[in-house]
Amino acid sequence: MAQTLGPRPLPSILLLSLVPVGAWLLVRPLLDPLPPLPAFHAALGLSIYAFLATIYLVPALGEAFIKARLFGRDLLKTYDTPIPESLGLVCASVYILVLILFIPFAFSDVFLNDYEDRSKHGLVVAEFPHQKLAVYLSSILSLLIATMLGFLDDVFDIRWRHKLPIPIIATIPLLLVYYAERGNTNVVVPIPLRMFFGTLVNVGPLYYLYMSLLSTFSTNSINILAGINGSETSQALIIALSVILNDLLYLPWPFGVRIPLHLLGGHTEFNVGGAWSAGMAYGSRELVERHLFSLYFMLPLVGVCAGFLYHNWYPARAFPGDTLCYVTGMAFAVVGIQAHFSKTLLLFFLPQIFNFVLSCPQLFGLVPCPRHRVPRFDKETGLLYPSKAVFKKRPSTVATVILKVFEGLRFVKLGVNAETGLLETTNLTILNVFLVNLGPMKEDSLVKVLISTQAAGSVLAFAVRYGLAWLLYDGNRR
Amino acid sequence: MAQTLGPRPLPSILLLSLVPVGAWLLVRPLLDPLPPLPAFHAALGLSIYAFLATIYLVPALGEAFIKARLFGRDLLKTYDTPIPESLGLVCASVYILVLILFIPFAFSDVFLNDYEDRSKHGLVVAEFPHQKLAVYLSSILSLLIATMLGFLDDVFDIRWRHKLPIPIIATIPLLLVYYAERGNTNVVVPIPLRMFFGTLVNVGPLYYLYMSLLSTFSTNSINILAGINGSETSQALIIALSVILNDLLYLPWPFGVRIPLHLLGGHTEFNVGGAWSAGMAYGSRELVERHLFSLYFMLPLVGVCAGFLYHNWYPARAFPGDTLCYVTGMAFAVVGIQAHFSKTLLLFFLPQIFNFVLSCPQLFGLVPCPRHRVPRFDKETGLLYPSKAVFKKRPSTVATVILKVFEGLRFVKLGVNAETGLLETTNLTILNVFLVNLGPMKEDSLVKVLISTQAAGSVLAFAVRYGLAWLLYDGNRR
Repeated sequence: MAQTLGPRPLPSILLLSLVPVGAWLLVRPLLDPLPPLPAFHAALGLSIYAFLATIYLVPALGEAFIKARLFGRDLLKTYDTPIPESLGLVCASVYILVLILFIPFAFSDVFLNDYEDRSKHGLVVAEFPHQKLAVYLSSILSLLIATMLGFLDDVFDIRWRHKLPIPIIATIPLLLVYYAERGNTNVVVPIPLRMFFGTLVNVGPLYYLYMSLLSTFSTNSINILAGINGSETSQALIIALSVILNDLLYLPWPFGVRIPLHLLGGHTEFNVGGAWSAGMAYGSRELVERHLFSLYFMLPLVGVCAGFLYHNWYPARAFPGDTLCYVTGMAFAVVGIQAHFSKTLLLFFLPQIFNFVLSCPQLFGLVPCPRHRVPRFDKETGLLYPSKAVFKKRPSTVATVILKVFEGLRFVKLGVNAETGLLETTNLTILNVFLVNLGPMKEDSLVKVLISTQAAGSVLAFAVRYGLAWLLYDGNRR
Repeated sequence: MAQTLGPRPLPSILLLSLVPVGAWLLVRPLLDPLPPLPAFHAALGLSIYAFLATIYLVPALGEAFIKARLFGRDLLKTYDTPIPESLGLVCASVYILVLILFIPFAFSDVFLNDYEDRSKHGLVVAEFPHQKLAVYLSSILSLLIATMLGFLDDVFDIRWRHKLPIPIIATIPLLLVYYAERGNTNVVVPIPLRMFFGTLVNVGPLYYLYMSLLSTFSTNSINILAGINGSETSQALIIALSVILNDLLYLPWPFGVRIPLHLLGGHTEFNVGGAWSAGMAYGSRELVERHLFSLYFMLPLVGVCAGFLYHNWYPARAFPGDTLCYVTGMAFAVVGIQAHFSKTLLLFFLPQIFNFVLSCPQLFGLVPCPRHRVPRFDKETGLLYPSKAVFKKRPSTVATVILKVFEGLRFVKLGVNAETGLLETTNLTILNVFLVNLGPMKEDSLVKVLISTQAAGSVLAFAVRYGLAWLLYDGNRR
């Protein structure tokens, strides 16, 4: 049964009704009375347009990508329609254009006409000091380099060993501007270690190393958790939403919320929000500014990811390519570095960390690594099954021990290959772990399991960050 | 006689001897005594490395470009070897990477340890104030967008009518940062018009329009004067060298030179150089800084263009693609805008302006425009002849008048097509004008004629700028 795949229809009337909403959010900050965070309104409005641009442009440009030979076949389907690949380039272009168009909202004096007067009332924060413009621009530059390199990766098909360091190149502007602006390289020492090192340690060059490794991790960890429709995009979407939720806790809301943290094991309650205490920033203008910076990067990212997911959802009409993973990974690294919450950020990557650690035996050659590690599609049942890696010779002792431990933890299913009589294992990816434990399932069910896991990981991350962090750091640390 | 084309051999020993020279230029500013312009040394050193990186990377990466289907056939040759196309991407990447690596040299306090002390002696200028970092970054951002769009143009083969506005997109960061930083939008009125407008006029939004049109012109005018080996690269090289020569006039040289301008029609002499008068800047620190900014962008551009020209020279082993035209055009626009010498810059584009004006009847459809307007290659003689455009119907009166005028000026040769009996004309490009007037010639001779014309244009430009500008502006205007 040959199936053809037309473009996914767009609910145009519903979508076009967003146009006036976005326009209102862009115009509102120019009207009196000035809202508390005028540039935040503008960022929201621009993000809506980013969403609309992406959802309309992706199907419109698919044809051109196929014509330029940027397409792939969906390996987990019965049909053979060419699916445009690297459409992450469209997302990245829209995203970066929106970030650039945001410059006058955040950095010029458009909204600052009666800022002086209102800041006395505690409701308005000076969005961005002008000197932060260089930091903002260096971040965009890093994102653009990541986009460029991601697209080159798609066009030239770079080998994964060669492309591991690519994100480091993309962080160069970020790091050099951090250096030129004499960025802070102090690290707060966890309480148990303070007797040795004191409260603050200046780690100097190590901090730059840490920043470039962070970007390498955030980029590649999304890239290796890929292969089924919607997986990359939904990971990026949920991480971005988690970062946004975390940022919102620090804004000066006009209302206050009390969170009973003892339920989570904390020893106190959190008073969140209230205009005067500026959320969890407790009146620290610097914290508010940092989290606003993060929001300005995350809101449009959610816009483009949501718009793209509409077409990337099972059965996918467009593939993201490496470009999307590079630009989203770099965006997370940028906010983690510039807004100084890289440890919290890493907590949102729990499924990626699990997947990376699990993958290590294959990445480092202990266990054979086939070209694709995606689950195996069975045309008869229409279900996905765990894919397998077969040893070509007797596995080393280390490999056997690791695989036995993984089997005990129900991460893999071992067996003996019928043809060679040698050991075989399910591939070491989180997607195969799901299939091993939950049984064969359809592709869209699997991506839903992935999404639920990512969301559950974020809930856990919040619990750890706000419930347990007091064990290692002073209570009010961001 | 089938001819094959191997890579052009590199004089490795000669080239590698440049490595220590570059290293010395990078290290020298760190040693005592501090040179007058430490970052200028670093820019020179980095430009040497840009040259070396380009000359080695272009042949090394050619294979990968061919594999990714980025290649073309040389239409003006007897052989049919696939030549890698879009290698301008390599130039642009090296160029931008060097500009980024330059950030700590220009903007951090690496060289400023004893700056305070020395500036009193008039020999040291504070290279860049920190706040200029945003301007520098926005310029790199524009260059990177131009590169990206140029490469997309090469991959997706965008139609020329659609790509005319592309440079405007690339100038957005430049313009928005100019706006956010409240850039100057005043224009100095030429002396004869001052009775109407005064000395300074604030043209406001028109200034932004002018800036985006400037980038559109500088980009596309190089792009349409293309088609023979080395033409785009050599144009860019000579314009960049002209800009550098102009910039050098404003630096604080430790020696003074007196130029007898009355020979050129000026009414005075110029005292150029001398540490205390800071060249033609006459002690204006702002002028020195502007021209240093320009040098920091032009020196590495010369490096990559020279490195690429080695492989792009007749018979070409690599084609630049649109990417090179976009990035070089944008680089000229950036320095023209940010260093405020756009009128002088336009004077260096005389051959391009001539070519553009000449092309207009074809660009706007008055005269038929074939897909390629490059000269015609004759395999028997190995010479280039003017290529022709043939009318499909009777030409309009306007077209006839224009062509008759052009014929009178010896810009075209008109004829009657043997098959259709209708009017035919040589294509309206400067390359065909050369062939009409100088007779058929070899491809390398034609590109040498083009280079000589470009150089002669720059000599004329300097004569106009420093010999005649006093007719329109006050003597000491930059």
